[in-house]
Amino acid sequence: MNLSIIFGGISYEHEISIVSAITMAQKLGKNIKITHFIFLDSNHDFYLIESSNMKSKYFSSLAYKQAKKIEIGAGGFYESGFLGKKKMLNTGLLLNLIHGGDGEDGVLSGLFDFYKIAYIGPRLEASILSYNKRLTKLYAKECGVETLPYYVLKRNETCEIPFELPYIIKPTCLGSSIGVCVVEDQAKLSYGLDCAFEFSNEVIIEPFKKGIKEYNLAGTKVNGEFILSLIEEPVKKDLLGFEDKYLDFSRTEEIKNAEITESLTKNLHEAFKKIYNTTFEGALIRCDFFVSSDKIYLNEINPIPGSMANYLFSDFESVLEKIATSLPRKHVININYQYINQIQHAKGK
Amino acid sequence: MNLSIIFGGISYEHEISIVSAITMAQKLGKNIKITHFIFLDSNHDFYLIESSNMKSKYFSSLAYKQAKKIEIGAGGFYESGFLGKKKMLNTGLLLNLIHGGDGEDGVLSGLFDFYKIAYIGPRLEASILSYNKRLTKLYAKECGVETLPYYVLKRNETCEIPFELPYIIKPTCLGSSIGVCVVEDQAKLSYGLDCAFEFSNEVIIEPFKKGIKEYNLAGTKVNGEFILSLIEEPVKKDLLGFEDKYLDFSRTEEIKNAEITESLTKNLHEAFKKIYNTTFEGALIRCDFFVSSDKIYLNEINPIPGSMANYLFSDFESVLEKIATSLPRKHVININYQYINQIQHAKGK
Repeated sequence: MNLSIIFGGISYEHEISIVSAITMAQKLGKNIKITHFIFLDSNHDFYLIESSNMKSKYFSSLAYKQAKKIEIGAGGFYESGFLGKKKMLNTGLLLNLIHGGDGEDGVLSGLFDFYKIAYIGPRLEASILSYNKRLTKLYAKECGVETLPYYVLKRNETCEIPFELPYIIKPTCLGSSIGVCVVEDQAKLSYGLDCAFEFSNEVIIEPFKKGIKEYNLAGTKVNGEFILSLIEEPVKKDLLGFEDKYLDFSRTEEIKNAEITESLTKNLHEAFKKIYNTTFEGALIRCDFFVSSDKIYLNEINPIPGSMANYLFSDFESVLEKIATSLPRKHVININYQYINQIQHAKGK
Repeated sequence: MNLSIIFGGISYEHEISIVSAITMAQKLGKNIKITHFIFLDSNHDFYLIESSNMKSKYFSSLAYKQAKKIEIGAGGFYESGFLGKKKMLNTGLLLNLIHGGDGEDGVLSGLFDFYKIAYIGPRLEASILSYNKRLTKLYAKECGVETLPYYVLKRNETCEIPFELPYIIKPTCLGSSIGVCVVEDQAKLSYGLDCAFEFSNEVIIEPFKKGIKEYNLAGTKVNGEFILSLIEEPVKKDLLGFEDKYLDFSRTEEIKNAEITESLTKNLHEAFKKIYNTTFEGALIRCDFFVSSDKIYLNEINPIPGSMANYLFSDFESVLEKIATSLPRKHVININYQYINQIQHAKGK
């Protein structure tokens, strides 16, 4: 199978996306050929990156600006040819690997849907429901999956948190752990709020339960059947920084399945399926769950997890190959002007 | 003020959008100059339409295909010039007048956000929350506004409606009254479901309360202050067809404010403000409410109402002029590769 990877984007996770793409370049290749690396830079220009240049320094040094610029259009990407004539690149299926803004907030889904480009990644509705953490909670509840209690605060509103310290404060609309802050005593509350409001006009505050168990589970649905990863209990630092993530994505050692009961495994699988639903079709997502006293709470949905959570699957390439056979299709709408024609016809009489 | 109108789109409401744009062409012109009419056809090609050609037959006869094709790109629209060189059109602010798919489902919002084009219309999140009627209900509840009870049915699921006849069946994701059907007796249920499933893989079923009062209220928020229209009690046919809408948009007689109490007026205003919130900033929306025994229920949010509900405002042009001064802005994100540089630096030591 041929695949092209799109990465970068105007996002606080721009650099994480570069690392994700570099990891993918290393992990794929047995049955999946990556034909093109497409970099979206901070000016929203697309560049075609040679695979030999897929190194983080190539981007941070801005050397990528020497690469060939390409354009998006009907059905895919184009390079300029003779006298401005455009030539379409044979990119095959696109893997959306842009974390955070552009990739996960629906902007690129809109673009791909408009230009009818086939892609692996969340569709518009899935993007909005996972990108906005407040909407994630409403959605999870509707699906029958619990989340932790929360309090929403907008910029310049008075803060009256209805639960006890410690808190965790998060920008409502950001992936990753950017702008996230744990507040252990009241004196540090306003500092924590400042941190989060730097990234978002609205923040979400939850009780921070130290020692709560966390489990990550990735998966997808192919022609009606779920493919689920093993369940990982992530190594707990309080919060993962950039360098941890960098190491995390590219780890090569085998992940061990979390040591949990069969019944908890089954319940985590059920919760994942309820969340995935039909909404996330076309995407491989990772759900991060909390477990406390055997109760499961959805923490967040990553509709484009770092390096696609490849390390959670024993045969990652075959998962991508299968998703490719099961991408959601839009209803075909025939525009035939029947109403206007009827009216014209009636007038003509 | 200069304004360009974009209309058409791949949508069941393609023809309604053409009628909306023709109406706008007639209603604006005192203080607002429409510089360009941009038509999006069923192939997703953009055409520049001369104002003299803004007649429904020009589109239904496909004569528009003789018009000049233009392309969307960074900051706006472009025409091809000498040797394929592109020349940007001076379109000014864009008014998104594409109802239903493309315009209201987030696809064009994604496109405009990506290309950094200023527009009046719902942003991505606002689009998703109003386009999907199930999400509208979750959102309204979160905002503190009631909706009618409902039952969601997916294609091929067994139907067990938990309330009594008559029902109203609607496709979950369509604007207008397309695919909507009232079922008065059990024998007609499967016909009603077939109608709705023709347009959507999921339908939403509500109790149909004959004689329930309906009130429409349009408005927007400009620099923190609401501008609200008068409240209309729409003339009730059971459902409005295409021709009714055609007439409805272009009506010229003065609309009368609904004869309701001051307290109901106030409560409808409050409900509108809760729904508009910050989510719909940048758009002029129309909320359709039901009222029964003095209780208010949100029926639906039209984030791009037909002909912009111009007939509900005494000075419609000034409303558009004001919105133009208060469009939402995206957070500026600086991409400076600080993390990658740090890691490179540490490695170099």
